[in-house]
This record gives sequence, structure tokens and C-alpha cells, in this order.
Amino acid sequence: VIGMIVHEKQLIQQIRRAAEAGRSRRSVVTGIGDDCAVLRVPAGHEMLVTTDFSIENVHFRRDWDPPELIGRRCLTRGLSDIAAMGGEPVAAFLSLAVAADVPQKWVDRFLKGLLQLASEFDVPLAGGDTAQSATGIQADIVVVGSVPKGKAVLRSGAKVGDFIYVTGELGGAGAALARLRASQPVGAAYSKHAHPMPQLAVGQWLRRRGLASAMIDLSDGLSTDLEHICEESGVGAEIESALVPKAKVEGGKLVALDLTLHGGEDYELLFTSSGKVPAKVADVTVTRIGRIVRGSEMRMIGADGKSSKLKAAGWEHFKGNL
Amino acid sequence: VIGMIVHEKQLIQQIRRAAEAGRSRRSVVTGIGDDCAVLRVPAGHEMLVTTDFSIENVHFRRDWDPPELIGRRCLTRGLSDIAAMGGEPVAAFLSLAVAADVPQKWVDRFLKGLLQLASEFDVPLAGGDTAQSATGIQADIVVVGSVPKGKAVLRSGAKVGDFIYVTGELGGAGAALARLRASQPVGAAYSKHAHPMPQLAVGQWLRRRGLASAMIDLSDGLSTDLEHICEESGVGAEIESALVPKAKVEGGKLVALDLTLHGGEDYELLFTSSGKVPAKVADVTVTRIGRIVRGSEMRMIGADGKSSKLKAAGWEHFKGNL
Repeated sequence: VIGMIVHEKQLIQQIRRAAEAGRSRRSVVTGIGDDCAVLRVPAGHEMLVTTDFSIENVHFRRDWDPPELIGRRCLTRGLSDIAAMGGEPVAAFLSLAVAADVPQKWVDRFLKGLLQLASEFDVPLAGGDTAQSATGIQADIVVVGSVPKGKAVLRSGAKVGDFIYVTGELGGAGAALARLRASQPVGAAYSKHAHPMPQLAVGQWLRRRGLASAMIDLSDGLSTDLEHICEESGVGAEIESALVPKAKVEGGKLVALDLTLHGGEDYELLFTSSGKVPAKVADVTVTRIGRIVRGSEMRMIGADGKSSKLKAAGWEHFKGNL
Repeated sequence: VIGMIVHEKQLIQQIRRAAEAGRSRRSVVTGIGDDCAVLRVPAGHEMLVTTDFSIENVHFRRDWDPPELIGRRCLTRGLSDIAAMGGEPVAAFLSLAVAADVPQKWVDRFLKGLLQLASEFDVPLAGGDTAQSATGIQADIVVVGSVPKGKAVLRSGAKVGDFIYVTGELGGAGAALARLRASQPVGAAYSKHAHPMPQLAVGQWLRRRGLASAMIDLSDGLSTDLEHICEESGVGAEIESALVPKAKVEGGKLVALDLTLHGGEDYELLFTSSGKVPAKVADVTVTRIGRIVRGSEMRMIGADGKSSKLKAAGWEHFKGNL
């Protein structure tokens, strides 16, 4: 019991120190050390709020990934959601519950990875909560952002005739997960997975130019996330399998199509547009992969030109098996 | 595994339905069903953000309290933090992880209690996250609020010579917890504990009149929460034990002084003021219990007039034993 309390006191102090560094930021009026954080929202802006769990043995395994990566991915989930609205992050909040038998070193390294990403995007950690957990690790990340009033890019704006685009290459994270699941080594070639990068600059660029009619981040997998856009927009979609950009892995090999369609955690952006979208936005490759059609069905046109039904088979499908 | 997924799908739908009810609110532009919720902040206001865990066997026990109360207390934690800043709640977000063996009925009743309190204060549930947990129940509540720019009441504003006040009566929740711990029945006399009530109206009233120099909510216990004010304000405090308002329990009996000093979860407000504070604010009794003094020590003047050191011995002290 003493061990637990020490653990939590250290945690609170660590998060507090990190949060105090954020106090210098104009957007954070008051950080940790009060009942609430006080944040400044730019005039004429609306607030964005997103919350995402990272739970041991559900979203991650301690024996599969280094703690820095787990921490980084925890914050990536939130920042990527802000990116998908075309927003700018204002502050992050971490609620972290840790069991007494989790080494302090693990927690240190988890926080290091999370704070490293926060620093890359200049997002202050402005608060959170800590607790002992009965078993394992449960983290909940909250990211608050802002976007000019009425300009948030929603999932519901896709129109028939819009083209469908993705940023970057897909399937890298899924390929790394598949190797971990098969107890195979995960080398440097999977560095994309090792360092997910929320596409904030791309999302903001598209929002400023009004170029994205609908947008979502690819956290669950292309098929599942595209289905969310279709459902919210009341449309169907058609993907050309040959156009889907495949991540490169060991020896320059491209990942299998299945992983690009259903592998999750790439944290790229999926969006629709009726406008002229350049092949590169904010130094990130953007690829047209299909178009929005009438109806509610998702279809895929294969390399042989044949059309088949595309079923959502991303994260929802995998998660029982982690 | 199938059971878990059904569980989570139901959960998402339940939270989504609740959140859709909130969409009609002016402050919630977009609720669940997108990457982020989009919230409107009144012009000239700053945002408040607070996050609080409610973890099984740390913050609550399923065999001690009905699920409705656990759900209500979960949201109370967040609303009470908003009250302590003098703020107004804008929206709530619930991240809920539940193990497969938790009955759906328990989750239904937990949500019912939480949504009942949300409805009492007209706070929309605007989003959140759901997950399977490896074991037990972990909830993280986020409440976003707003307060006119520069007007948030902090913990750090107490000045030497200010009087110290509390709302309501203290120790009721601690008395109920003591009975549960001793396997004694908890009757109607403990209804205060059964229905914690965040003091939003009192907090807002004090903030509008600029009457509170520092404020905190009594979640951890008077001694621990007063210490937070002293630390953040760089002052000491002197409490008169005879002035501390004691909750009434069975047979009109008053709770023991110890419970009023160190029992947590009363969710009353503790504040300091140099002004003229009425004995009732927003229909809630307000009691002067002491004053802010030089130094950093907390002292208590007993019924016999003798002064002794008051040590913080609230929640931090108890939590290993729940």
C-alpha cells in the first residue's frame, strides 16, 4: 500500500512538472494545481474535445512495444482526432492509472514518449488525474483544440461525385502488429509504426482552403473509417485497390493490400473533396484512391477491373485478438 | 470475446443516444459521431477543463453502492470542480472501460445515475470513449466549462486575514463510508452521501460578486483540501472546531469531528473571503469556520480554546484501505 502511494505521488509530481512547463504557454492560463485547468480560446473559434483510452492488453501490450512508443501513441490518438477536424491543439490532459507492480521506470519512459510528441507539436500538458489501478495500466488522453467558428471538417459532409484521398502510405502499423502477433522481430523498417505522426499540418491546410468536404483519421483501418464517413454522410464509396498507397517494409517490400484496407493505427487522414487537391500537402503525399457514389455501399475495384463489396473489417474485427 | 464486443457496441449506442439528446444544446455544435466534439464557448469567456477517474476498488466498490450512485458520483467529481472555479458547465465526456463479466444491467444503471445528474444541471454528454477492460470498471469523466475571462476563482488567492467558509454540512459521506467499511447498514439518514450535489449555483454566485479570494471543492476532506489552498496561496490557516458544521445522521445524531475534518466526498465548497458573506447563498447554508493566517501551518482551536496542529489526513490517508 505504501508502494502504491509513493508511486502515485511520483506520478502526480511528474505530470505536474510537465504541466508547469506548459504554463508559460499563452493558451494555458492555469494548469495543474487547481480544480480545473483554465484555457484561452482564440476569439471567433470553437473548441474541439476528444478523449481516447489506451488500455493495457486491449490497445497495447507491454511485451510488444517500448513504453516510449505506447506513450507516444496514446497522445497521437488525440492529436490525430484534432487533425481530422482541421483543428489546432490547445492542450492535452492525461488520466493515468497504474498498478503497484508496474515499474516506475516503465512509467517514466511512457511519459517521456508522450511528452516528446507533445513537445514536437508544442502542445502543453495542462492537467489530468492519476490513480492506482487494481491491475495493469489504463490511460485516458484528452486533447482540447480550436477551430474557426463553423469551419470544423466533419465526417458528414461527403457528397456524391467527391474524390476520396488519403495521406501517406497505409498498412505499416498493421504489418508491424502482424509481426508482433506472430512473435517475429519488428525492425527499423517498421519505423513508421514506431513513430506515428498526427497529420495536423495537412488537416489545417485543407480546412483553411475549404478543400475537404469530409475528413476522418485512419485509426481503426481504412475500411472501417471510410464506413464512418459513408454512414455519417449518407453516401456510398468506391475504392480502386491499385491506387491505395502501400507502406514499405523490410527490403523495400510493399505491405499486403489487406493490411492497407483493414490495418489500424496508421494515423493518416482520409478525406473527400470536390476541389483540386495537390499531390503533396505540407510535405506529405496525398493520394486519390476512389470516389463517393450514391447509395450506402462500399465497393472495391480490383486490379482486374472487377468490382466487389468492401466490408468494414478494421479494428473492431481485430480487437478481441490482441 | 463475442460477449465483450456486444457489450461495447451497446455501450457506444447508449452513450451515443445520450449524447444525441445533448446535440440540441446551443453549446454543443457536434457531439458523438465525429473525431471530436465541437463546442461553443461564450464570447469573452475562458474554458475550464477537469478530468477525474472513478476506478473500481479504488474509488468505489460494486458491493457497497448502487450503480446509479456510482454513476452520479462519477459526474459529481467533474461538476464540483467546475463549481470550485465559479464556472458554468458546458459539456461532459465519459470514457468507460468495462470487463466482459460486468452485467449489462449494472452499466445501464450506472449511466442512468450519471445522466440523471447531467439532466438536473442541464449538462449535455457530448462524447467519450468505450473499451473492454481486462478486469473491473474504469471510468474517466471530463467536464468542460466556461468562466468570464480572468474571473476563475483559483486556489492561490487566499490572503492573511481572510475568513474561511464552507457550504452545507461536512462528514456525511465519510460517515456512510465508515459504516460500509464496518459492514453496517447505510440507511436513509445518509441520503446526503447517496445524492451528492455539486454546488454550482453557490460557486457562480460568489464569482459574480467577486466574494471568494480562493476556492476548492471538498472532495478529499477538509484538512487535505484546506492544505491545498494554503500551499497554493502561501499562507497558514486556523480552524475553530466548534464552528465546523456537522452532518446529521441516524436519529439526528451529529457525525464525529474527525469525519468532518478528514472525511472526503462531501462535494461542498471551501472558500476564503475578505468580504461580507451571507449565511445563505443560493439556498445553501454557508458557515465561517476559521481564518487565514501568516505562515504555512494549519492549526485547530478546540472547544477548550486550546490550539493544536491540524494535519492533512483526508483521502490520501484513507485510499489504501478502501
